[in-house]
Amino acid sequence: MKGGKKMRYNFVEPDLERCKRQNFPEAIYCPGKSKDEIIKIIEIFLEGNVSPIILTRMDKVLFTEIKEHFPQMVYHERARLGSIVSKRGVGRLRGNVCVVSAGTADVSVAEEAAVTLELLGNKVTRIYDIGVSGIHRVFKHLSEMRRARCIIVCAGMEGALPGVIAGLVDKVVIGVPVSVGYGVALGGFSALFTILASCSANLVSVNIDDGYGAAIVAHLINNIPKRSKC
Amino acid sequence: MKGGKKMRYNFVEPDLERCKRQNFPEAIYCPGKSKDEIIKIIEIFLEGNVSPIILTRMDKVLFTEIKEHFPQMVYHERARLGSIVSKRGVGRLRGNVCVVSAGTADVSVAEEAAVTLELLGNKVTRIYDIGVSGIHRVFKHLSEMRRARCIIVCAGMEGALPGVIAGLVDKVVIGVPVSVGYGVALGGFSALFTILASCSANLVSVNIDDGYGAAIVAHLINNIPKRSKC
Amino acid sequence: MKGGKKMRYNFVEPDLERCKRQNFPEAIYCPGKSKDEIIKIIEIFLEGNVSPIILTRMDKVLFTEIKEHFPQMVYHERARLGSIVSKRGVGRLRGNVCVVSAGTADVSVAEEAAVTLELLGNKVTRIYDIGVSGIHRVFKHLSEMRRARCIIVCAGMEGALPGVIAGLVDKVVIGVPVSVGYGVALGGFSALFTILASCSANLVSVNIDDGYGAAIVAHLINNIPKRSKC
Amino acid sequence: MKGGKKMRYNFVEPDLERCKRQNFPEAIYCPGKSKDEIIKIIEIFLEGNVSPIILTRMDKVLFTEIKEHFPQMVYHERARLGSIVSKRGVGRLRGNVCVVSAGTADVSVAEEAAVTLELLGNKVTRIYDIGVSGIHRVFKHLSEMRRARCIIVCAGMEGALPGVIAGLVDKVVIGVPVSVGYGVALGGFSALFTILASCSANLVSVNIDDGYGAAIVAHLINNIPKRSKC
Amino acid sequence: MKGGKKMRYNFVEPDLERCKRQNFPEAIYCPGKSKDEIIKIIEIFLEGNVSPIILTRMDKVLFTEIKEHFPQMVYHERARLGSIVSKRGVGRLRGNVCVVSAGTADVSVAEEAAVTLELLGNKVTRIYDIGVSGIHRVFKHLSEMRRARCIIVCAGMEGALPGVIAGLVDKVVIGVPVSVGYGVALGGFSALFTILASCSANLVSVNIDDGYGAAIVAHLINNIPKRSKC
Amino acid sequence: MKGGKKMRYNFVEPDLERCKRQNFPEAIYCPGKSKDEIIKIIEIFLEGNVSPIILTRMDKVLFTEIKEHFPQMVYHERARLGSIVSKRGVGRLRGNVCVVSAGTADVSVAEEAAVTLELLGNKVTRIYDIGVSGIHRVFKHLSEMRRARCIIVCAGMEGALPGVIAGLVDKVVIGVPVSVGYGVALGGFSALFTILASCSANLVSVNIDDGYGAAIVAHLINNIPKRSKC
Amino acid sequence: MKGGKKMRYNFVEPDLERCKRQNFPEAIYCPGKSKDEIIKIIEIFLEGNVSPIILTRMDKVLFTEIKEHFPQMVYHERARLGSIVSKRGVGRLRGNVCVVSAGTADVSVAEEAAVTLELLGNKVTRIYDIGVSGIHRVFKHLSEMRRARCIIVCAGMEGALPGVIAGLVDKVVIGVPVSVGYGVALGGFSALFTILASCSANLVSVNIDDGYGAAIVAHLINNIPKRSKC
Amino acid sequence: MKGGKKMRYNFVEPDLERCKRQNFPEAIYCPGKSKDEIIKIIEIFLEGNVSPIILTRMDKVLFTEIKEHFPQMVYHERARLGSIVSKRGVGRLRGNVCVVSAGTADVSVAEEAAVTLELLGNKVTRIYDIGVSGIHRVFKHLSEMRRARCIIVCAGMEGALPGVIAGLVDKVVIGVPVSVGYGVALGGFSALFTILASCSANLVSVNIDDGYGAAIVAHLINNIPKRSKC
Repeated sequence: MKGGKKMRYNFVEPDLERCKRQNFPEAIYCPGKSKDEIIKIIEIFLEGNVSPIILTRMDKVLFTEIKEHFPQMVYHERARLGSIVSKRGVGRLRGNVCVVSAGTADVSVAEEAAVTLELLGNKVTRIYDIGVSGIHRVFKHLSEMRRARCIIVCAGMEGALPGVIAGLVDKVVIGVPVSVGYGVALGGFSALFTILASCSANLVSVNIDDGYGAAIVAHLINNIPKRSKC
Repeated sequence: MKGGKKMRYNFVEPDLERCKRQNFPEAIYCPGKSKDEIIKIIEIFLEGNVSPIILTRMDKVLFTEIKEHFPQMVYHERARLGSIVSKRGVGRLRGNVCVVSAGTADVSVAEEAAVTLELLGNKVTRIYDIGVSGIHRVFKHLSEMRRARCIIVCAGMEGALPGVIAGLVDKVVIGVPVSVGYGVALGGFSALFTILASCSANLVSVNIDDGYGAAIVAHLINNIPKRSKC
Repeated sequence: MKGGKKMRYNFVEPDLERCKRQNFPEAIYCPGKSKDEIIKIIEIFLEGNVSPIILTRMDKVLFTEIKEHFPQMVYHERARLGSIVSKRGVGRLRGNVCVVSAGTADVSVAEEAAVTLELLGNKVTRIYDIGVSGIHRVFKHLSEMRRARCIIVCAGMEGALPGVIAGLVDKVVIGVPVSVGYGVALGGFSALFTILASCSANLVSVNIDDGYGAAIVAHLINNIPKRSKC
Repeated sequence: MKGGKKMRYNFVEPDLERCKRQNFPEAIYCPGKSKDEIIKIIEIFLEGNVSPIILTRMDKVLFTEIKEHFPQMVYHERARLGSIVSKRGVGRLRGNVCVVSAGTADVSVAEEAAVTLELLGNKVTRIYDIGVSGIHRVFKHLSEMRRARCIIVCAGMEGALPGVIAGLVDKVVIGVPVSVGYGVALGGFSALFTILASCSANLVSVNIDDGYGAAIVAHLINNIPKRSKC
Repeated sequence: MKGGKKMRYNFVEPDLERCKRQNFPEAIYCPGKSKDEIIKIIEIFLEGNVSPIILTRMDKVLFTEIKEHFPQMVYHERARLGSIVSKRGVGRLRGNVCVVSAGTADVSVAEEAAVTLELLGNKVTRIYDIGVSGIHRVFKHLSEMRRARCIIVCAGMEGALPGVIAGLVDKVVIGVPVSVGYGVALGGFSALFTILASCSANLVSVNIDDGYGAAIVAHLINNIPKRSKC
Repeated sequence: MKGGKKMRYNFVEPDLERCKRQNFPEAIYCPGKSKDEIIKIIEIFLEGNVSPIILTRMDKVLFTEIKEHFPQMVYHERARLGSIVSKRGVGRLRGNVCVVSAGTADVSVAEEAAVTLELLGNKVTRIYDIGVSGIHRVFKHLSEMRRARCIIVCAGMEGALPGVIAGLVDKVVIGVPVSVGYGVALGGFSALFTILASCSANLVSVNIDDGYGAAIVAHLINNIPKRSKC
Repeated sequence: MKGGKKMRYNFVEPDLERCKRQNFPEAIYCPGKSKDEIIKIIEIFLEGNVSPIILTRMDKVLFTEIKEHFPQMVYHERARLGSIVSKRGVGRLRGNVCVVSAGTADVSVAEEAAVTLELLGNKVTRIYDIGVSGIHRVFKHLSEMRRARCIIVCAGMEGALPGVIAGLVDKVVIGVPVSVGYGVALGGFSALFTILASCSANLVSVNIDDGYGAAIVAHLINNIPKRSKC
Repeated sequence: MKGGKKMRYNFVEPDLERCKRQNFPEAIYCPGKSKDEIIKIIEIFLEGNVSPIILTRMDKVLFTEIKEHFPQMVYHERARLGSIVSKRGVGRLRGNVCVVSAGTADVSVAEEAAVTLELLGNKVTRIYDIGVSGIHRVFKHLSEMRRARCIIVCAGMEGALPGVIAGLVDKVVIGVPVSVGYGVALGGFSALFTILASCSANLVSVNIDDGYGAAIVAHLINNIPKRSKC
C-alpha cells in the first residue's frame, strides 16, 4: 500500500459493483475513517476503474494530505468535496437539474449536490438565496425551474421554500433540509419536518445536509429512460 | 349557588381585576373543570359585571348543561366557544384584524380567534383555506390583508403560510400553529417550529391551537393608542 | 348546495388549477373537515371537471354518508380511499410502478399508494409481506422490482426494507414509513429515520403513512418524458 | 468587488425591497456566510441606500476583518451586533419600548433587541436582572414598564418572568427565550415552552435568542399608527 | 381469598415492612392491577395491620367493586383516592403543610396530596387557584404559606407558580407538575422543566401528577424531629 | 379458505423456513392484521407443520372469533397470547430460565415471556413483584435466580430492577422495559434507557413490552450447546 | 469600581434580601456573566455583608482572575466552586447531611453539594463510588446513611442509586441526576427520569448537575426546627 | 500512593468481588475520572490480583501519562482501550464469537468488543465493512457467522445490518448501535431504535457505542456451560 501503515485487520471492503448494479458509484464519506483507510479505498477504486471517485465531507486539511498520494484529485471548496475523474472525463452534460438554495448559508449543501451532479454527467442550473421571506425572488426564477426535469431545493431554518416551489411546478422536488439556524431550527429537524409535512405532494426529502443523496436521486430521474454510463 | 353541589373547599378564585388591569377579561378554559366549578366562576363573573364572559374549548354537551343555568349564553359551534355578553352589548366594531387559515381543517382555531375578537369589539376580516401549495390564493387576498392593522394566520401540517404572508406585509403577523396533520406534523409542533424559525422577522407565535391568545394580542395591537373599554 | 347546511363564511377554496399546473389533481384529506365542507369541495371539483377526485383517510361511515350525495363514488376499503372518476375513465395504464410492503400490517398504506397510482393511469405491481427478517423473500421478487421504473416501499417497525431494496436496484426508491409497531417504533419515526439515514443514496422519504404522496412522486417519475393528462 | 475573491456563482441575492414592503430593512445574519459573501451583501445594501445595515451574531474577529472594508461600521459588543447608519443618522427616538432581562446572563440577547430598536429610531427603557426568584425587583420597576407601548422580556433557565410581567400590564409582551442554563433548561426550549404555555394571554414568543426578531415586532407595534421611515 | 378468582401464580408480594422501615406505608397504585390482585393486596395489608391503606388513581367504578369486599373503604372523589383506616383512626393532626394549586384544573392532584397528608396525620392548609397571571392572589395568601413547615405547589400549563412561591419563603417547596394544558404544555413536561430549572434553589420536584409522592416527602419533613407513628 | 373473505391480492407471505433457519418459529403479531389475514396465516402454518403457532397481543374478542375456525387454539389470558401446539406436544421442559417482574402491573409482559418459553420447551421459574423500593425481596429470591441459565427481568416505571439483579449474578440478564407508569415513565422509554445505561455490563435490552422477543433470546441461550427441535 | 471597566447600563441587580427572606444567600452562577459583572456583584454582596458568598461553576482560570481583586477568596477544585466567608466564619457545624455518589465521575457534583452545605454550617458525611452494580457497597454504608437527617444522592448513567437508597431509609432523599455517561444516558435526562419515576415515594429531584440546589434543600431540612443564621 | 496527589476524601471504592460474583472483572471507564483516581483504582486492582484490567475510552494522551506508572500497560489504538494482563496471561482462546461492523467508521466500537473478548479468553472472528447497501457482502460471510456461538454486529447510521443478519442465523445477535452519521442518525439513536424495533426476535441491544458491554454478554454466552476463570 502506498503511503499508509499496514492495517492488522481488513477494515475496508468497498462495493465495486455498485456502479453496474445501481448506475452510480459508491462515494467515500470521510468522517470517522482514518487517512490510511481512505487511501486504501481510493486505491481499490482506482484498480476497479471506478469513476468518478467522490469524497464527501472532506475538509481542506484532509484533502491536502490525501492529494500527496493522488495528485489528480481536485477539491471543490464550497462543496467540501474531493473528486478523481478518470482520463476519459465526464463527457457532455445531459438533461437539466435545477439546484436551489433558500439562503447563502445553505450554499455549501447545494454545492455538494450541484458538483456531484456535474461529476455524474448532468447539466445543472444553480439558483441561490431566494428564501420565502422575499418571495418575489422565487417568481423571478420560476420559468428556469420549470424547464428542469427535476428540482433540488436546499433550505435551513424553517425550510418552507421546497414546499412553496413544489406547489408551483409539475416536477418531482427533492427537499434537502439544512442544519443552518438556531433554537427551534433544531439542527435541520425543523426544516426536515416542514418538507415532509408539506401539502405539496410532489415533494420528497433526504437526510439533513445530504446534498450528495439528493444529487443521486436527481441523477436517476434525469436519466430516465436513457441510462448514463457512470 | 344555583344548580351545583356545595364544594367542600374553595376550588376557584377568579381574577376579577383582569379587565381593569390588562384591558381584557379572564376567559374560562373548560377542560379539567367540573360543571359545578364552571357555574361558580360564571356566577362570580356576573356579580362582578365582567363582560364578555368567554368559555373556550367548550363542547356542545357541556354548553347544553351550562345553558340551563344561564339561558343568555350563546354557542359558537365551529369555534367551540360559549359567550355571555352584558346587556350593553359589544358596541360598534373598531379597527380591522385579518384572520387567515391555511386549510379547512384549521378553521376551528381561526374561528376561536375571530369570534373572540368580535366579542371584544374588533372588526374582523376572515380569509380561509389559502395554503402555500396553491400560493396564487395568497396573492389574490393580499390587498385585504395589507389593509388590516394586524394579521392572525392559523396553519397546521408544516405551517409555512404565516412566514410567507409575513414576508409580504408591514404588519405584525401572529402565527397560530394548529394540531392538524399526521406523522411529522407532530401535533402542531412542526408548524410551531416553522413559525418561530421563519426568516420573516415580523412574525410571532402563540401556543398550538391557541386562537384565543392570538385574539387577545391582536386586540391589544388593534386598540393602540385609543384603548377599548372591555 | 345539495345536502349540506349553509356555511356562514366561505371555509373552502379548492385549488382547481392544480392539475394543469402540477400534472396531478388536489386530493381531499378528510380528517378535520366537516361532512358539509367535503360535499362542497366535491361539488366544486365536479363543476371544474377535476378527475379523478380522490378522498384520503376516509372511514366507511363517512363514505356511506357522502355516497348518498354522489352515488358514483367508489370505496377502496383496505386503502381507506374514496374516488370519483369522470365518464371518460382512467384509460389504459402506462409504465410500471412497483409497490412493496414489509408486513401485512403495512398493507393499508401500500394500497393507498397503489390505488392512487392506478386512478392516475399507472400500471402497478404489488409485492406484499416481504420484510427483512426473512430476506429470501426479497430476492425471490427482485427481478419484478428491477423491471419497474420506480419502486415504493412501505415499512413500519424498524423500516429496514426500503434501504435493503434500494441497495439492489438502479431506480429511485420512495420509502414510506408506516406507523405500525410499538415502543421504539415511535409511531413511524423509527422507520422514517431508518429510511433517511440509509447508506443507499437512491432512497427518499415522504411523511409517515403518506401512501398518497409516494404515489404522486412515482406518478411523475413514471411519466417522464411523456406526460400523462390527468 | 472591494477586498474579496471573485465568486464563481452568484451566491447572494439580497432583498432590497424589504424596507419599502415591510417597514424594516433585511438584517445580515452572519453565521454560515463567508467573509466575502458578507462584504458583497453590504456593498449591494450601500448601493441600494439601505439604512441601518444591521449584522447580527457577529463576533469581534469577524467585525475587525469587515471593518477594514467599511470603516464607518460600529460594533456593539454586548449585543454581538455590527451596524452601518447612513449619514442622515437615526433621528429623534420615538415612542417607548421597554426591554427587560431576567438575569445578567440574558443581557446579550436583551442588548441585541435594545440596540436594534434604537437603530430603527425607537426610544428604549432597559430593566435588567429582575428574575422571579426575587420578585420584589419586578414590582419596583412596574410603573416604568406600564409606561411603555410594548415590552420585550428576555429570560433563560425556566423562563417564568415574561408570564409574570404579562399578567401585570395591559400591553403586548414579547417573550424571548434565552439559551442560558443547564440540564432541563434544554438550550432555551424550557423557557420557550414556559412562555407559550403561560396563562397570560397577552404574551407571544419569538425564536430562542432572537433579540433581533423581538425588536422588529416591537418596532412595528411602537409605530402604530404613524409609521417610521426606516 | 374473599371475592376473587384463584391466581395460578403468585403475582403479588406486598412490602409489609415499609411502614417500620420508612415511616410511611406502601400505597396501592391501581392502574394495571386486576381487581383480584388489588383485593389480595388489601387482605394481606389488613392481616399485617397496615394503616392507612391508600389506593391511588382509583376510579369510581373500581371503588364500587372493591367496596363490596371491604365496606369500611372510603372514597375521596376529587382526589381519585380510596382509603381504609384502622379502628384506632388517624389521631390529632400535627404540624402544618400548605397545599397550593395554580388553577382549578390542578385540584385533583392537589387533593391527592392533601388527603394523603391528612390520612398520615398531618394538618393541611389548602390554597387553590392562585396562578401567576393574577399574582396578587399569591401575596394575599403569603402569610398563610409562611406559617407552614413545608409547601406543596401543584401547577400545570407552564408551571411558573412553584418557583415564584419558593422565592418568597424560607421553606422547602415541593413542586408537582400537572398534566393539564395543551400544545407545548406537553402533558406536564413543560411544568416539570420549569420547576427544575427555576432559580429558586429551595425547590424540588416529584413526577408529573404525583400528588401522593409530594405528600410523603412533606410528611417526612413535617415530622422532623419527632417521628409520627404511621 | 375456511371462514374468510377472498382477498383480492396476496397480502400475506409467511416465513415457513424460520424454524429450520433460526431454531424458533415465526410468531403472529396480531395488531394491524385483519381476522381473515390471521386465519390465512394460521392455515399456511398448519399446512407447513409449524408448531407451536404463537399469536401475540391477542385480545379476548379476537381469540373467540379465531377459535371458531381453530378449536384447538388455547388462550393464555394474562399473557394476551393464543397458541396452537401440534399433537406431539411440547415435550419435557429443558434447562431453566428465570422470569422476574418488578411490579404486579408488569406481569402481563412477564407472562408473555414465560408462556412463550414454556411453549418452546423451556423450564421457567417465575418471581413476580419484587421491585427495588423493597429490595429485601430481591435477596430473598437470589439463589433461585442464580440457578437459572439466563434471567429475564420485566420492569416499568423507572426500570431499575434489571440492573440491580444483573450486578448480583454471573448470567446474561435480558431486561424488558414495560410501558407501565405515568409522566416521566414515558411509556417505557425511561425503563429502556435505565436498562441500557446501566453499569451492569451483563445486561441487554429488547423493545418495550416485548416479552416474546426476550423469550426467544433466552430460549437460544438456554439451548446452548444442545439445540432444541422447535 | 475596583478592577473592572465601567458598564454603560446597570446589568446587575443582586438580591440582597434573600438571606433574610429565605434563610440562605444568593449564589453567583458564573457561566454567561462577564468578569466585570461578577466583580460588581461580589462588591455589592461584600457591602451588604452577605456571607458566605458562593460562586458555582467557576473554572480555575476565572478563579485566578477574580482572586486578584478579592484575595480572601478560596477555591474548591473538585467542586468547581469559589467562596468568600466573612471574618466571623462558618461556626460549629450542625446536624448531619449525608452526601452519596454512585460513581467517581459524579464526585464533582457531589462535592458542589458537600462544600455548599459546609459553608452554610452543616455537618456532612461523604460516601462516594457505591453504585448499584456492586450493591453490597450500599449495605456496608447503610447505618451511616440512616443516622443523617437528610440524604443527597448524586448519580449519572442510569441513575438507579437514589431510588435504591430511598427504599431503605425513613428520610427524604434528594436525588441529583448527573450528566455523566454516553448514548442513552442523554446528558443526565435518563438519571433524572429514573429518579422521578422511582417507586420510592420519599425521593425528590433537582435539576441535572445541580449540587448547589440539593444542598440548599438539605440545609433547610437539616435546620428544622431551629433555624441557622446564614 | 505512587505518582498521584493525596486525595482528601476517598473518591474511589472499586468492586473487587465482581470477577468472583459475575465471572468478569470491573472495567475502568476513563471519562470523568482524574488521572490520580485512575492510578488509585489500578493499584487497588493490582493488589487484588484482578486480571485483565481493562480501561475503556482511553485516549492516547491519557494512556501515555498512565503508562509511566504502569509500564506493563498495553494500548489498543483503534479500540481506544488500555489493558494490563497478569503474568499468567490470557491462555488458549476458547469458543468463537463473531464481531461484525457495517462500515469502516464503526470499526472503533467493533474493536473495543473484539479486544475485550480476546482479553477475556474468547476466540474472535472479525468481519468488517459489510453494510446492507451492498448486501452481497453479507452473504459472502454468512457461513463464517453461522459457525460462531454468538454474533456482535456494530452499526451506525440507520443500523439495519444487525436485524438483517439476525434473520439469517440461529444464534443470539447482540446489536451495538454506533454514534456515526449525521442528521437523523441522531448520535446513534436511530440505529438503536432500528435494532430494538426489528422483527428479528433473536436480536438484543446494548447502549450506543458500548462495545465493551456487548463483549461481556457474548463472553457469558460463549462460556456456557463450562465457565471460564477470568
